[in-house]
Amino acid sequence: MDLNTMIQAMAKDAKQSARLLRVAKRAEKDAALAFMAERILSNKEEIIRINTKDITLAREKGLNPAMIDRLTLDEKTISSMIHGLQEVAALPDPIGEVTGMWKRPNGLQVGQIRIPLGVIGFIYESRPNVTVDAAALCLKSGNAVLLKGGSEAIHSNLILNEIVSEALKKANLPEKSIQVIPFKEHEAVGILLSMDEYVDIIIPRGGEGLISFVAENSKIPVLKHFKGVCHVYVDEFADLQMAREICFNAKVQRPGVCNAMETMLVHKNVASSFLPGMIEDFTSAGVEIRACENTLRLIPNLILAKDSDWPAEYLDLILTVKIVEDMDEAMDHIERYGSHHTESIVTNDYGRSKEFLEKVDASVVLINASTRFNDGFELGLGAEIGINTSKLHAYGPMSLKELTTTKFIVYGSGQVRT
Amino acid sequence: MDLNTMIQAMAKDAKQSARLLRVAKRAEKDAALAFMAERILSNKEEIIRINTKDITLAREKGLNPAMIDRLTLDEKTISSMIHGLQEVAALPDPIGEVTGMWKRPNGLQVGQIRIPLGVIGFIYESRPNVTVDAAALCLKSGNAVLLKGGSEAIHSNLILNEIVSEALKKANLPEKSIQVIPFKEHEAVGILLSMDEYVDIIIPRGGEGLISFVAENSKIPVLKHFKGVCHVYVDEFADLQMAREICFNAKVQRPGVCNAMETMLVHKNVASSFLPGMIEDFTSAGVEIRACENTLRLIPNLILAKDSDWPAEYLDLILTVKIVEDMDEAMDHIERYGSHHTESIVTNDYGRSKEFLEKVDASVVLINASTRFNDGFELGLGAEIGINTSKLHAYGPMSLKELTTTKFIVYGSGQVRT
Repeated sequence: MDLNTMIQAMAKDAKQSARLLRVAKRAEKDAALAFMAERILSNKEEIIRINTKDITLAREKGLNPAMIDRLTLDEKTISSMIHGLQEVAALPDPIGEVTGMWKRPNGLQVGQIRIPLGVIGFIYESRPNVTVDAAALCLKSGNAVLLKGGSEAIHSNLILNEIVSEALKKANLPEKSIQVIPFKEHEAVGILLSMDEYVDIIIPRGGEGLISFVAENSKIPVLKHFKGVCHVYVDEFADLQMAREICFNAKVQRPGVCNAMETMLVHKNVASSFLPGMIEDFTSAGVEIRACENTLRLIPNLILAKDSDWPAEYLDLILTVKIVEDMDEAMDHIERYGSHHTESIVTNDYGRSKEFLEKVDASVVLINASTRFNDGFELGLGAEIGINTSKLHAYGPMSLKELTTTKFIVYGSGQVRT
Repeated sequence: MDLNTMIQAMAKDAKQSARLLRVAKRAEKDAALAFMAERILSNKEEIIRINTKDITLAREKGLNPAMIDRLTLDEKTISSMIHGLQEVAALPDPIGEVTGMWKRPNGLQVGQIRIPLGVIGFIYESRPNVTVDAAALCLKSGNAVLLKGGSEAIHSNLILNEIVSEALKKANLPEKSIQVIPFKEHEAVGILLSMDEYVDIIIPRGGEGLISFVAENSKIPVLKHFKGVCHVYVDEFADLQMAREICFNAKVQRPGVCNAMETMLVHKNVASSFLPGMIEDFTSAGVEIRACENTLRLIPNLILAKDSDWPAEYLDLILTVKIVEDMDEAMDHIERYGSHHTESIVTNDYGRSKEFLEKVDASVVLINASTRFNDGFELGLGAEIGINTSKLHAYGPMSLKELTTTKFIVYGSGQVRT
């Protein structure tokens, strides 16, 4: 059998499983999640042993330490996987919620009810814990899932798949609801992306290269998250101490993630009182500042930002700084360079806060808070599967609800159309 | 300038307009809609005169009478356009609705607010009235729109665009919010589908050929509606008189539309009491019946259905009929041949109705009502722009709300992440 035939067979199995899964009870899904947690715990040594195989091979291939780190399953990552499963089990079941119901003049009772999407294709990179996290969210939301992780994690992913399947079986749910695609060939991704007859949606999670490849090659709709070029605008009416804490947190608390600040925009009227201390905080924390000419006039010895800096997502301790004439210039800058991810304003002015919130086009817009709050848990949605920066289907962090849709239900008593 | 450069310029203008439109007030949008209605009325003779040009050219090219009919703007279609504009103006503004708001333990107040999608690319066939209908829905939902209609309607579409632009200007809204792409070249569609930098979503409306072409060639997400292969299942516990009326209505009331019934599934226990009278009704109304072998045993002289009949969307006075062993067989048939559009059961059994409603995967599932109710107006949503049979973003009729998304808004007081 060729790769195409084998992946097609898996996709068919997924679709059949999805039909059963969409009517599965919450108790069954939560039981499966609990069994998964139990089995991961009791097979911890085995998982770590097999993961070591992946790590050894990765070292031989010369993967860098950051990638090895992401690949590694140890006591800590395993207990966080288990904790994640328990958390998802504790979340309410989104399926079956009636989001609205009304009566028509002819007596028809019309409603909308939440249902699963069907089959999700999840494409990710080397973290094997994502296999379990994604499987849990898909299962809880009643979706079957085909998981295609990075080839360097293949052995870890397969042992996790085995454990997960046993748990599904024990909970009387279809074993093929969750399937790791067991092929290392890169071709497998392209084949998965062509299975539009069986797969309803593709969610890629990883670097820009992976996401662009998926978006360009998929015959199936893709929920994508390109990049996070997030700004904080410090208004002339900001509490400057608050602004200093928010900006520092947005840049420094975890610079390698998509909701970290990449550019700080400062109103010209507070530039001289705000910037010197703020930039001292940043440089003390090892942040490299790339600034506009006006900032350089105020604080020499900084690097002059190039045109290519403004749209850049550094994911690192690098920050661009720009002094703006007014809030309009700040919003123009965000409109031009922002990535529809996370934008924040610091101000005590009522009108400015209202205007910024209304006009800025991003999945999360904040007043007087750090950009780092764009996260499923932090916003109170529970575990998330990624952040969608395209406006289709869901905008922002995607949690259980975003893995569903609604269908119309109509209760009649013999109505016909005239 | 080549076609690509010209369409890109239009798309850029649309994106700029969208930025203004997303904060437009309801009063401004409704005023523009009212001005459109007024101007269409006062320019009626001119519109009809220009439309005649399109019709003459279409006749010369040998277009069939059905296409000429769709192309024609007369007193009746024009007053229905005007009525449509007034109806959309009367609908509530979806933009700005806060769909939820909650407080986090750290005091952050988190909400979701409804916003427009941005720029919509609308691709359709020869009906020029769709130009105005689509423009109205896009405007009311705060979206800019690029309209690419069939080339045979070009003169009609351009005069309507002129009227619509004047109305926008008079209402102080950006004139480029609504733009008809003025090129007859088929190439223009492909170019529009490549403008992912400016266009957020593509909505095609037309035959299967157009929709497949758009889906396969678009770099932009597409909301698609492939076809409506709709079933009515007559259960053994149906009120047979009610079933007869519902099935007749579903097939005959307007056979050329996507929510008409294509296949009638009948429980074996009521086949002999139900089918003879029902089929007499159908044949009297000129419906050609293509039936399964069991039906033929009961009523000879019908055409035997071929394998290719079950997945067919006839859009005509043709009906396939199948006797099933039980509801499971009916649901299996729907799962296999249905198009996720509209499915109906006729039954007086509580358990069967509940099970069918839950298990059947279609954008609208009805109990004891005609499939013909899958329609924005009939379901109480107001005017619709099409029916989405893929599960992404919206499932079922797409009205104003479905042309929007939500963003997260966060009211903080200095919160940082720890």
